[in-house]
Amino acid sequence: MKYYIILLFTFLLSFVSTAQEPITIGTSYTISSSVLKENRTIQIYLPKSYNDSTLTPQHYPVIYLLDSESNFNYLSAYVEKLSKYPYPSIPEMIIVGIVNTNRTRDLTPTAQNTAAMSQEQSSKIKGDSGGNSLFFDFIETELFPYINTNFRTVGYNILIGHSFGGITALNNLLTRTSMFNAYIVHDPSIWWDNKIILQNYHNAKDYDFQNRKLFLTQVDEKENTDHLAEHYNAIKEFDQFVTNNPPLNLQYEYIQYAGEDHGSIPMKGNLDGLRYIFDGYKINFKQLKTDHHLLENSFNTLSKNIHFILVPNEQYLTTIIKYFQQNNEIAVVDYLIQYKEKHYPKCMIINKKEK
Amino acid sequence: MKYYIILLFTFLLSFVSTAQEPITIGTSYTISSSVLKENRTIQIYLPKSYNDSTLTPQHYPVIYLLDSESNFNYLSAYVEKLSKYPYPSIPEMIIVGIVNTNRTRDLTPTAQNTAAMSQEQSSKIKGDSGGNSLFFDFIETELFPYINTNFRTVGYNILIGHSFGGITALNNLLTRTSMFNAYIVHDPSIWWDNKIILQNYHNAKDYDFQNRKLFLTQVDEKENTDHLAEHYNAIKEFDQFVTNNPPLNLQYEYIQYAGEDHGSIPMKGNLDGLRYIFDGYKINFKQLKTDHHLLENSFNTLSKNIHFILVPNEQYLTTIIKYFQQNNEIAVVDYLIQYKEKHYPKCMIINKKEK
Repeated sequence: MKYYIILLFTFLLSFVSTAQEPITIGTSYTISSSVLKENRTIQIYLPKSYNDSTLTPQHYPVIYLLDSESNFNYLSAYVEKLSKYPYPSIPEMIIVGIVNTNRTRDLTPTAQNTAAMSQEQSSKIKGDSGGNSLFFDFIETELFPYINTNFRTVGYNILIGHSFGGITALNNLLTRTSMFNAYIVHDPSIWWDNKIILQNYHNAKDYDFQNRKLFLTQVDEKENTDHLAEHYNAIKEFDQFVTNNPPLNLQYEYIQYAGEDHGSIPMKGNLDGLRYIFDGYKINFKQLKTDHHLLENSFNTLSKNIHFILVPNEQYLTTIIKYFQQNNEIAVVDYLIQYKEKHYPKCMIINKKEK
Repeated sequence: MKYYIILLFTFLLSFVSTAQEPITIGTSYTISSSVLKENRTIQIYLPKSYNDSTLTPQHYPVIYLLDSESNFNYLSAYVEKLSKYPYPSIPEMIIVGIVNTNRTRDLTPTAQNTAAMSQEQSSKIKGDSGGNSLFFDFIETELFPYINTNFRTVGYNILIGHSFGGITALNNLLTRTSMFNAYIVHDPSIWWDNKIILQNYHNAKDYDFQNRKLFLTQVDEKENTDHLAEHYNAIKEFDQFVTNNPPLNLQYEYIQYAGEDHGSIPMKGNLDGLRYIFDGYKINFKQLKTDHHLLENSFNTLSKNIHFILVPNEQYLTTIIKYFQQNNEIAVVDYLIQYKEKHYPKCMIINKKEK
């Protein structure tokens, strides 16, 4: 028996870990807001290429994420995976996650009107509400300048919101349309304040949505366990209204997810939402062999679709040029080098020397 | 102009971040393996309750994750979100992610047989292959004891593998069936070595799979861009074989995902796979008001299904007891307190004092 214990002890000693280090995925900043008169925690994810000194410093689209404490971790992993070469379906992006302090205050469009609520609803609402407008001021006049000054942003911004964050995003799309280029909205609380958001969209029939994109998700009817029928029905009503009365210059997509509930829906929804915004980004680059212009044409089409000029990342171009060099496809290599030179002139000089 | 610059400068100064800290999601361990004769990096995620000193120290199921470098970040966020109260659909779990050193060596069942491969396939395979068996030895004789000695594990283990990791998981299920209780397998490379894995399953018609669960995913036919038709067809063939010849004591589920490609499929697939394994875990706890035994019955049914006794987490029970206390549902509170006392006796004494 003793012998076995000694053996076991020796074994465990021989198998101790030699090093431990934390796995980090971003940085949390505490910033002070004069608008909101409080400190706010902002979680920031930067793409891997951001600090790669071998590349031309690049500017990135930015995702502004509400309820960051519940969504930052998987979303940053999604952006990394979906933007991975050689088959990226979205660009590399920066994520700016806003952590809540007083969620109901910031993420509701109007002040609490308990008269319009069922007892169950009103019992859920504690404290202030209706702070959307001040919260938008914070983002527009404090957070945007802070991010755009301290990070290399390209000027294409996406807003993601869920539940109360969802009506906040819909409210922003209608009342501060120029702030974001695209919106991903999950199972939003359209029931809030006697469906005020739906009413406002009703009242804005001729409003110009400035070529924004909106991706809306809703849970499975069966999964609607903790949410009142009015929550579910209000989203259905919103979808029907927007579908039957297409808002001016708004691209709209709605998906209902079988098997997802109110808590889980942002996970599948964000995967599909990001790919919806950048639909056409992913190509089968091997087809460039016979169709040299495929990449350029795809990016032109996508740029027209999102009303913003996007070009392929430098690293992506390097990756596919290498592929065709290894396969001795001289014609497409020459074409791609020229194409890359146009967008990343400095680097091309280095590449030419290497040649 | 000067005035504006001064204003801007003052503004930026007033809005500097006051603190920065890294966002961490787990710990990376370097351990030395005598079996593989090399150091291995293991990424470990612990649930939030793990180090909560107010709770009875709990033991957790463990997910062993292959290709951890590509999947650890979002998977740890999934486990956290899906196990969240009051509507958890899976238990809190530990994740043990194995980072690759020589992927093809470890994650293939047999040595490279280029004669059986197309030119495109064989050009992809570099170096050693066929190391599954030694890799399983590493997990069974070194990693398992290390994890079970250093962490509070309950004895229910899940293996997740994708592509080469997928055939590795299928090989493990057939050749070392007792190691894991459930398997999640994404778009596996069944074409490997003249479909050796499929052949082995064919040859094991009367084999007893010891009540394991297998969740298999496959990409959209259209999304099969970089993968040969034989990759796609081999998985179809495997699914058809298993469906038409249900293996003894193996629970099996197959899902094909529209819109997902070989790189993206583990993201939706792991969400659904984890919920498939713990199907029945999620209940609408509010129904306990009229059906006190719902929770107990659900866990009994689930435990029978997975052939392993699972009980609700202490924190989960505390959460729903609090809910019914707030709603003055004395009968269900009394029942739940008794139920909780049965599983977490120490804590109940504290609770009684509080009362």
